Amino acid sequence: MGSDSDLPVLKSCFGILKEFGVEVEAMVCSAHRTPDKAAEFAKNAEKNGIDVIIAAAGKAAHLPGVLAAYTTLPVIGIPIKSSTLDGMDSLLSIVQMPSGIPVATVAIDGADNAALLAIQILSVGYPEFRAMLKDYKKKLADKVEEKNKALKSKLQDID
Amino acid sequence: MGSDSDLPVLKSCFGILKEFGVEVEAMVCSAHRTPDKAAEFAKNAEKNGIDVIIAAAGKAAHLPGVLAAYTTLPVIGIPIKSSTLDGMDSLLSIVQMPSGIPVATVAIDGADNAALLAIQILSVGYPEFRAMLKDYKKKLADKVEEKNKALKSKLQDID
Amino acid sequence: MGSDSDLPVLKSCFGILKEFGVEVEAMVCSAHRTPDKAAEFAKNAEKNGIDVIIAAAGKAAHLPGVLAAYTTLPVIGIPIKSSTLDGMDSLLSIVQMPSGIPVATVAIDGADNAALLAIQILSVGYPEFRAMLKDYKKKLADKVEEKNKALKSKLQDID
Amino acid sequence: MGSDSDLPVLKSCFGILKEFGVEVEAMVCSAHRTPDKAAEFAKNAEKNGIDVIIAAAGKAAHLPGVLAAYTTLPVIGIPIKSSTLDGMDSLLSIVQMPSGIPVATVAIDGADNAALLAIQILSVGYPEFRAMLKDYKKKLADKVEEKNKALKSKLQDID
Amino acid sequence: MGSDSDLPVLKSCFGILKEFGVEVEAMVCSAHRTPDKAAEFAKNAEKNGIDVIIAAAGKAAHLPGVLAAYTTLPVIGIPIKSSTLDGMDSLLSIVQMPSGIPVATVAIDGADNAALLAIQILSVGYPEFRAMLKDYKKKLADKVEEKNKALKSKLQDID
Amino acid sequence: MGSDSDLPVLKSCFGILKEFGVEVEAMVCSAHRTPDKAAEFAKNAEKNGIDVIIAAAGKAAHLPGVLAAYTTLPVIGIPIKSSTLDGMDSLLSIVQMPSGIPVATVAIDGADNAALLAIQILSVGYPEFRAMLKDYKKKLADKVEEKNKALKSKLQDID
Amino acid sequence: MGSDSDLPVLKSCFGILKEFGVEVEAMVCSAHRTPDKAAEFAKNAEKNGIDVIIAAAGKAAHLPGVLAAYTTLPVIGIPIKSSTLDGMDSLLSIVQMPSGIPVATVAIDGADNAALLAIQILSVGYPEFRAMLKDYKKKLADKVEEKNKALKSKLQDID
Amino acid sequence: MGSDSDLPVLKSCFGILKEFGVEVEAMVCSAHRTPDKAAEFAKNAEKNGIDVIIAAAGKAAHLPGVLAAYTTLPVIGIPIKSSTLDGMDSLLSIVQMPSGIPVATVAIDGADNAALLAIQILSVGYPEFRAMLKDYKKKLADKVEEKNKALKSKLQDID
Repeated sequence: MGSDSDLPVLKSCFGILKEFGVEVEAMVCSAHRTPDKAAEFAKNAEKNGIDVIIAAAGKAAHLPGVLAAYTTLPVIGIPIKSSTLDGMDSLLSIVQMPSGIPVATVAIDGADNAALLAIQILSVGYPEFRAMLKDYKKKLADKVEEKNKALKSKLQDID
Repeated sequence: MGSDSDLPVLKSCFGILKEFGVEVEAMVCSAHRTPDKAAEFAKNAEKNGIDVIIAAAGKAAHLPGVLAAYTTLPVIGIPIKSSTLDGMDSLLSIVQMPSGIPVATVAIDGADNAALLAIQILSVGYPEFRAMLKDYKKKLADKVEEKNKALKSKLQDID
Repeated sequence: MGSDSDLPVLKSCFGILKEFGVEVEAMVCSAHRTPDKAAEFAKNAEKNGIDVIIAAAGKAAHLPGVLAAYTTLPVIGIPIKSSTLDGMDSLLSIVQMPSGIPVATVAIDGADNAALLAIQILSVGYPEFRAMLKDYKKKLADKVEEKNKALKSKLQDID
Repeated sequence: MGSDSDLPVLKSCFGILKEFGVEVEAMVCSAHRTPDKAAEFAKNAEKNGIDVIIAAAGKAAHLPGVLAAYTTLPVIGIPIKSSTLDGMDSLLSIVQMPSGIPVATVAIDGADNAALLAIQILSVGYPEFRAMLKDYKKKLADKVEEKNKALKSKLQDID
Repeated sequence: MGSDSDLPVLKSCFGILKEFGVEVEAMVCSAHRTPDKAAEFAKNAEKNGIDVIIAAAGKAAHLPGVLAAYTTLPVIGIPIKSSTLDGMDSLLSIVQMPSGIPVATVAIDGADNAALLAIQILSVGYPEFRAMLKDYKKKLADKVEEKNKALKSKLQDID
Repeated sequence: MGSDSDLPVLKSCFGILKEFGVEVEAMVCSAHRTPDKAAEFAKNAEKNGIDVIIAAAGKAAHLPGVLAAYTTLPVIGIPIKSSTLDGMDSLLSIVQMPSGIPVATVAIDGADNAALLAIQILSVGYPEFRAMLKDYKKKLADKVEEKNKALKSKLQDID
Repeated sequence: MGSDSDLPVLKSCFGILKEFGVEVEAMVCSAHRTPDKAAEFAKNAEKNGIDVIIAAAGKAAHLPGVLAAYTTLPVIGIPIKSSTLDGMDSLLSIVQMPSGIPVATVAIDGADNAALLAIQILSVGYPEFRAMLKDYKKKLADKVEEKNKALKSKLQDID
Repeated sequence: MGSDSDLPVLKSCFGILKEFGVEVEAMVCSAHRTPDKAAEFAKNAEKNGIDVIIAAAGKAAHLPGVLAAYTTLPVIGIPIKSSTLDGMDSLLSIVQMPSGIPVATVAIDGADNAALLAIQILSVGYPEFRAMLKDYKKKLADKVEEKNKALKSKLQDID
């Protein structure tokens, strides 16, 4: 993550990765304030056994793109909504990557989906995640069904 | 792809996948006009040996999200620029997915990067792509260097 | 509705439909989390005696379009304002439908108008709603007139 | 329509309505240049046997809303893309109607869908349109399937 | 004003008009809920001795344009910021008027400036306002000067 | 006008002013390149017998606001669409004036309406323009009516 | 600054300039309310020994551009986020300057960076700032490193 | 520049720098394709005698920010308009830099102003540019004056 101020948004990302038993190496590292460290991290990521990188950043959000420049691992970018422009600046700075250097972009503040996408990507090489993903998906559907059942009583409160 | 009118944009995507020797199953299939077919395709994708899905769509671009709803395979979404709003509608319809169902979104008309991201994802399970990706990346850098060398003579033409 | 978190916005929609005596079948059902259920609902809607569908969704709001894909009943879409982008993502994801599959889109969080539009549509086949709609419209005008009368005293408070 | 310059966009709307055998009364009438005529038209529409109104307008597109103000018939609004702002002004001027006066908005330049939505609405009172709509929907799906079949040969042209 | 909910924004408008001694006729009147009344007001405005009309409205803000359609008096439009889209919908619905029917648009929630613009317009026929306007302008400059003087002490509080 | 490149857009403005017999003093003058001249012009405008100022500018369009800063005459601003951002930058730079210094803003490239608004403003002091404005408005309506009559034959061309 | 209401945003700007020992002359001065004073200030800035100008303004933010019109000193513009449009109006009004009169624009509410950019510019003529800038940059990196170290314990709190 | 496709936009930048006799080192270098080279360039820029860096880039335009991360020299960013989104993505990716690492941003495709801003910055240390800048500014004003004189004859062509 580009700043530890992003942690509240990213909590659910860490939570889901933990739930799936994915080994995570977390760090604060900035494309602008610690560019060498970011470059080092990305250059060595593959050899350090990393399979997927998730990078979150806000405003002129360069971190995902800068990491992607130094690796051929898949890089997932999370645009963080900052104090102005509602995250549109973060989104465009991450998703509009030029040809040759992709960043797999999820929704603004889409930390959950970054984790799930990482696990979907991992499942290409680690098929054991497949069943867990299907289970997770089923739970999502079940929750919708529960809400659906709760709806009737809620609707009776509306005059 | 949601429509065969997207083919000109997607050509480079097919080209890169071919260049890397990735086996591709291509189809026109619409979230709105052939929803059952889209659902069938996504439901059976894993069992049919597919590892990654790339879906391109424009305007209220639902195809990537609809496919993602029916599978746990990674789905890459390409927002297609249509005749109005410069692709912003396509981008937001694809990237702003709700929690639980990620779509890995690339740039508007970012067909090259969709292919490269797919290969990066495949390389998690098929490490043979790693070297090819590094080679591709090196060629990108070499091309920049060539352009850099050509720049001097071009600049002399500016009075 | 795509999520029960949309219920506070939709309350007035249910209220107006109740006020007009329209029979309502409400459900939580997600284009992404319970896609099969959404498809089933839409496929069977006509045969189940439904005349109009109202679907509310936020962010990459696919529910109205997905329902419209499976039915020829008129589908009304309510873009829900979510935590970012002020509902612009929801609006574009719903209104920018490709040729062939219309969604009748109302304003962001425009739950009242979705109900009224549904009743206007019903009145094509059930003329008994016509008089009620005219009465509702008259009441709207009367309320403006009351506010107009109250304005003078309010204006005297301005120094 | 607000201006006859909108006719090229609206042609497909007229074409579809004709194809379905819907009786159409077409007129150029402006919320700003002929407001009385617009008001008269809308006030008398119901008594003149009109069931649904389609109104197309661009820029500060007031026509659909102004007609809706004078009738309880369903009004469909088509935002026309004008010479600037890519139709965003037209879209917001039509879709963001205040509570009480809905306009069923379709996509920017979405003339086809306006016609289809009108027929879907008519089918609430005129069930004979139902079968035709299903047939139309099937043809859309068939066209996708044809394009899908044509895709293979097109893809072989890509080196 | 289109709704009495706009009154808090418009207070300063009434305040400035009162300060300059401009005779004001205020009313709540909606382009959509009381269209006939709006039309009547605008048609008769000139004969009722009105020189300038100020109309405030939000969302799909049609009131200023609708009044302008029925009169040749100058109409000033104030786009009101509503609960979503930050007033951009109101602004575009008011300022993007088609050729032939101008609306003099001020800033979003720009009630002060609507009053001052009205007085500037009145001063074309009532030169007695000129001196008052110059005086007002001088006071604005004086206030800036006072703030400038207060700045030094404020800046000393910054470490 | 801020640049003579704006002349093609402004032609119709000059045309309408001429048609109404309004005496016009035209000049190219830039808030940024000839700021002193712009300031001088605005400061002396009233004493030089000018009643209304029309200022057209594009991009970071400061000319209307800068002129308004130096005069109490009504200033009409025309946002010119430039090579990028579709005139949104020009519009916001002109319309979003801070409290105290209004600019009467018309549509992007709305040169016709700037002329008509100027004449409406002039008519507060020069009532002879009233009848001409009503006549102009009637001609607009007549043109719509003519187009309406021509519509039938045009529609028969649609298969 | 255009208004003393901008002071809270600008505090960190003053703080950084003080920290670097830069001599600052601060003033409230408005392009619209005190245009002559703004012009005087800019015209005399060079002869008064000023090397760089920082101007902050919101909405139709003309101050930086107006100052730049009267001087050849580098002018840094800070777009201030105001009560609506999230600072997009301020940004476009400042950054989209026409050819010939540049304004060095920083982020919306980017007061820190305006100060740092000013010092970077000063360092072209006053090399003593170079070492301080490097030191400041190092501290930024150190802070990231500290946050990185604190991250581990924070992450253990996430279940 | 990030790509030699930016050269047409940048020509005037090179032209102005040449006209002022500024020594220029030009290169194509990409934040994403040749990140190490970009980093090297920026790290060594000061010691190589460079005073100001101008970086142009489009889409997710990271080059200016990445260079700024590695140097304390002033970095000027030119957002290049690319094939979609009208340069808004480039602008936000460059201007919205986080605290600590400023980029002096000019208008979209604002190559002229990047050159002039660079020279204004150089003039802090190289006062010989001051007179040239004033001369340039005077020529800009003279050109406006010439256009102003040519305006009269042009206006006579308008009927």
